[in-house]
Amino acid sequence: MVDSELIAVARGEKEADILLSGARVVDVFDGEIKEGDVAVFNGRIAGVGKYRARETVDLKGAYLCPSFIDGHVHVESAMVTLPEYARAVVPAGTLAVVTDYHEIANVLGVEGIKYMINMAEGLPMQVFVMLPSCVPATPMETAGAVLEAEDLVPLLNEKGVIGLGEVMNFPGVINGDPKVMAKLEAFSGYPIAGHAPGLTGQELNAYIAAGVESDHECLTADEAAEKLAKGMYICIREGSTAKNLEDLLPIVNPVTERRCFFVDDDREPKDLLEQGHMNYILRKAVGLGLDPITAVRMVTLNTARRFGMKGMGGISPGWQADLLVVGDLKEFKVLQVYKEGAKVAEDGEFLVNDLPTPPPAPGAMNIAWEKIKGIEVQAAAEQMLVIGVVPDQIITRKLKERPLIKEGLAVADPSRDLLKICVFERHRGTGNVGVGFIKGFGLQEGAMASTVAHDSHNLMVVGASDSDIMAAAKAVEKMGGGQVVVRGGEVMASLPLDVAGLMSTIPLHKVSERVQGLHQAAGKLGSSLGDPFMTLSFMALPVIPELKITDEGLFDVGTFSHVDLFE
Amino acid sequence: MVDSELIAVARGEKEADILLSGARVVDVFDGEIKEGDVAVFNGRIAGVGKYRARETVDLKGAYLCPSFIDGHVHVESAMVTLPEYARAVVPAGTLAVVTDYHEIANVLGVEGIKYMINMAEGLPMQVFVMLPSCVPATPMETAGAVLEAEDLVPLLNEKGVIGLGEVMNFPGVINGDPKVMAKLEAFSGYPIAGHAPGLTGQELNAYIAAGVESDHECLTADEAAEKLAKGMYICIREGSTAKNLEDLLPIVNPVTERRCFFVDDDREPKDLLEQGHMNYILRKAVGLGLDPITAVRMVTLNTARRFGMKGMGGISPGWQADLLVVGDLKEFKVLQVYKEGAKVAEDGEFLVNDLPTPPPAPGAMNIAWEKIKGIEVQAAAEQMLVIGVVPDQIITRKLKERPLIKEGLAVADPSRDLLKICVFERHRGTGNVGVGFIKGFGLQEGAMASTVAHDSHNLMVVGASDSDIMAAAKAVEKMGGGQVVVRGGEVMASLPLDVAGLMSTIPLHKVSERVQGLHQAAGKLGSSLGDPFMTLSFMALPVIPELKITDEGLFDVGTFSHVDLFE
Repeated sequence: MVDSELIAVARGEKEADILLSGARVVDVFDGEIKEGDVAVFNGRIAGVGKYRARETVDLKGAYLCPSFIDGHVHVESAMVTLPEYARAVVPAGTLAVVTDYHEIANVLGVEGIKYMINMAEGLPMQVFVMLPSCVPATPMETAGAVLEAEDLVPLLNEKGVIGLGEVMNFPGVINGDPKVMAKLEAFSGYPIAGHAPGLTGQELNAYIAAGVESDHECLTADEAAEKLAKGMYICIREGSTAKNLEDLLPIVNPVTERRCFFVDDDREPKDLLEQGHMNYILRKAVGLGLDPITAVRMVTLNTARRFGMKGMGGISPGWQADLLVVGDLKEFKVLQVYKEGAKVAEDGEFLVNDLPTPPPAPGAMNIAWEKIKGIEVQAAAEQMLVIGVVPDQIITRKLKERPLIKEGLAVADPSRDLLKICVFERHRGTGNVGVGFIKGFGLQEGAMASTVAHDSHNLMVVGASDSDIMAAAKAVEKMGGGQVVVRGGEVMASLPLDVAGLMSTIPLHKVSERVQGLHQAAGKLGSSLGDPFMTLSFMALPVIPELKITDEGLFDVGTFSHVDLFE
Repeated sequence: MVDSELIAVARGEKEADILLSGARVVDVFDGEIKEGDVAVFNGRIAGVGKYRARETVDLKGAYLCPSFIDGHVHVESAMVTLPEYARAVVPAGTLAVVTDYHEIANVLGVEGIKYMINMAEGLPMQVFVMLPSCVPATPMETAGAVLEAEDLVPLLNEKGVIGLGEVMNFPGVINGDPKVMAKLEAFSGYPIAGHAPGLTGQELNAYIAAGVESDHECLTADEAAEKLAKGMYICIREGSTAKNLEDLLPIVNPVTERRCFFVDDDREPKDLLEQGHMNYILRKAVGLGLDPITAVRMVTLNTARRFGMKGMGGISPGWQADLLVVGDLKEFKVLQVYKEGAKVAEDGEFLVNDLPTPPPAPGAMNIAWEKIKGIEVQAAAEQMLVIGVVPDQIITRKLKERPLIKEGLAVADPSRDLLKICVFERHRGTGNVGVGFIKGFGLQEGAMASTVAHDSHNLMVVGASDSDIMAAAKAVEKMGGGQVVVRGGEVMASLPLDVAGLMSTIPLHKVSERVQGLHQAAGKLGSSLGDPFMTLSFMALPVIPELKITDEGLFDVGTFSHVDLFE
């Protein structure tokens, strides 16, 4: 939009709204620091220079940067609504995120995506949407929706939608699966993001030839260097779960840097509160030796250019006055944040009071109890398959154990850390329940349950007794989704996740407190895992070795098929 | 477009069309040279690696680059049709140009632009169009068309049209001229190119704040550095007329380089034939010390990224197989050129024989002789204003001279190098003729005429006698536009420019020969100017100091108004 008044301000004939004076302006275009005053009018930058303004803010030599952009995140992982998410990340300097509503789409499909898009309205943060390309993530479990190309294409008309999100189904791409091809074709004029851990050589060539343009799953510098050399954008990820920054930083040099940008992918409430957001990544990157202005460019101009965000990512006349003030380019402590010229945060405090209230979320708990014939397991052999937890990892081991048999039933045996695990299908009322056994959670009694379970987000429960398993499942259902720890039928700790069973309508710091409460309660029951709910959330992900469980039963990732408990 | 067969080739399961083997592949993404084989299928790159193919071309260690893109050129300046232009630049490695049909639009308006767009069909070279933003260039002369926002917007649907061309009217931008604002608003979602020589400080801020994104008119490194720091893309120009490469190269460093690219703006037939095209600029840039791979990126990936050309500018799976082979990265002698996998040039020879024939051009000579009352000048004073040519420059001096008076008329006086200059309006049959006197052409007899006259391209004639002036004008009209040298009523040399009076339908080398013929003929008449037709073509450009002449009469650029010959 052309603003004649802004032009008049820029040429010095009209007063600006605000002058941010005495700043050290971080110029991402030439990589230099300029001492100067930045004039802002009608939400946009008029220019750097000598200007008059209605209001002058003396920045006293602090650094003025373009605000930060998170180039890839699943906001659902913060477990709060978007207004609460903004409340956390805006004071950290993030005024735009590129998100892929993969999680909620697996629960609520198109309705969930639209719900999130509506919720982004009126926030002092721009939300760009890459549409989830892989719902369901796998055919081995029951998700809340199936999204084909024809479901996704109409969403291109929704506000903020810019492209196709991480195409995780790389075997489908490489092998020319027609439904995957249809999605790539439909989005061929738009940004298409990738997800292809470890893919290399000709398979990688095939993946790129299909139109996938970026990757955020590189684990090693060699892997990233190959992808980059072949023309991909590299998202360097440093999130709560996956941390690749230190490993990938060696690929960043003056030639390659322009095609790299920082992302967090997933960021938990506690980390958001304690570490911050992209400013945390910058702090870490600079601590590892990266040039600070280059680091800033990797969360501003580079990201904006990759996604074609016009007028964003730099301090240039006519561009959005999305700015932040930091005391130095080392700690990146954010002192002030301006969204389109309005101060929205100062000294870590969020200054916007009239955030919109999220609309009520669609119901997301549809368990057909009447179809469920119980979770008892008839002992059918002397040995059974057991999921072996590997602490702090999302892989598991395929174990064989002797069942504890009572009255012909295989039951949990906490003395051997042999617990029952159940996956209740919660989307379509199928009455599916996957039942198995798991070793490594350490609960001596009680049960824990959660509706956060990648990627289909069915209701996961691990417990030492069937009665507590059922009590935990019912307690979660009663909250409309969430997480609980139960002992003797009583709820010890809980977190309601009343938005799709993934996000809570309570504030972020309360979510974080309640998450700590859940961890403590699980600890009291005997769990020694660092984050037992995180571990639980990956037990149903049937693409990660070795043995997993879905609502359709145990799944052997090695043979890529469902297997019986008693082989 | 997703091509499942290409994906199968990329992953090695299907045979490629061609394998360009044993190449040193220039990787613009990471700036390295890779030894490898490049597989091509269905016009696109399948990958670099070990591949099978129906046909293998051994490149014997030569360098394989992405083909070149000219980021800003007025193709009309080559004085040939687009097929002939392609015949010249494709063997030099250029497979895409970003052009602004400013010249023909000043003659034929929308019809001219559409004519050129149609002519680009079927060429082994992609033509991207930035629509001319300033037609007419000035209100001080009569052009063939007036193009407002509403005339330009429908052209966005035409093939290859991507944005708005150089916004030369920077005073109009800075001062918020409503018609200029309307154009900027209409194109605010598209690339908008600038043209603002010497603009600096707050005026530059205003220009950028209006949405203008690039500049190709920088004369000094300081000027370019300011524009770049403020967020503009810098087109580093090295053409036949303006040569800025050496002056601007100091701004290119690893941070800024990504926002710079090479352009030629105007390139004459002789230079195209003798020097080449973008390969000439690369040769010169590398000779001046620029890193060769950086130089290549500045005519490939950088340009493609600036204009959002997907799948162009690099060697990446799925991208267009627009490739060229050079023996070294110093001379950039182009050995082979592949357009979408098909060899289109080898050793300087153009291999495409079935180029489309341009459709007949719309008539472009509309001089109302019946309204013209002659070109005689009544002597009205002892002194008259005379245009003073400055050799090899486009500026002139405002001189005062005593007229030679015969029978009450001021006439040419070749003994004092005082010639008559006439501008015949040729677009709208107004009968306008601007008549004045000029010093510096040196003709002792005869006349020379041309329909190339920036920016309105009226018919310019300089001569030693009224009879030869009229003979030259009529000779040009008879050709449907063009250039002639006349002596004693006889045509000594001519070049027909039957397309809009700007371009010829004869081949480029013949155009070049006839241009030489014109220069020789002008020399025989006494001209000592290096390029008298070039000089003539700028005498009607009323934005360049000091004294110019249009079809509406003498124009004093200092007072920015028309003036009488006898003040």
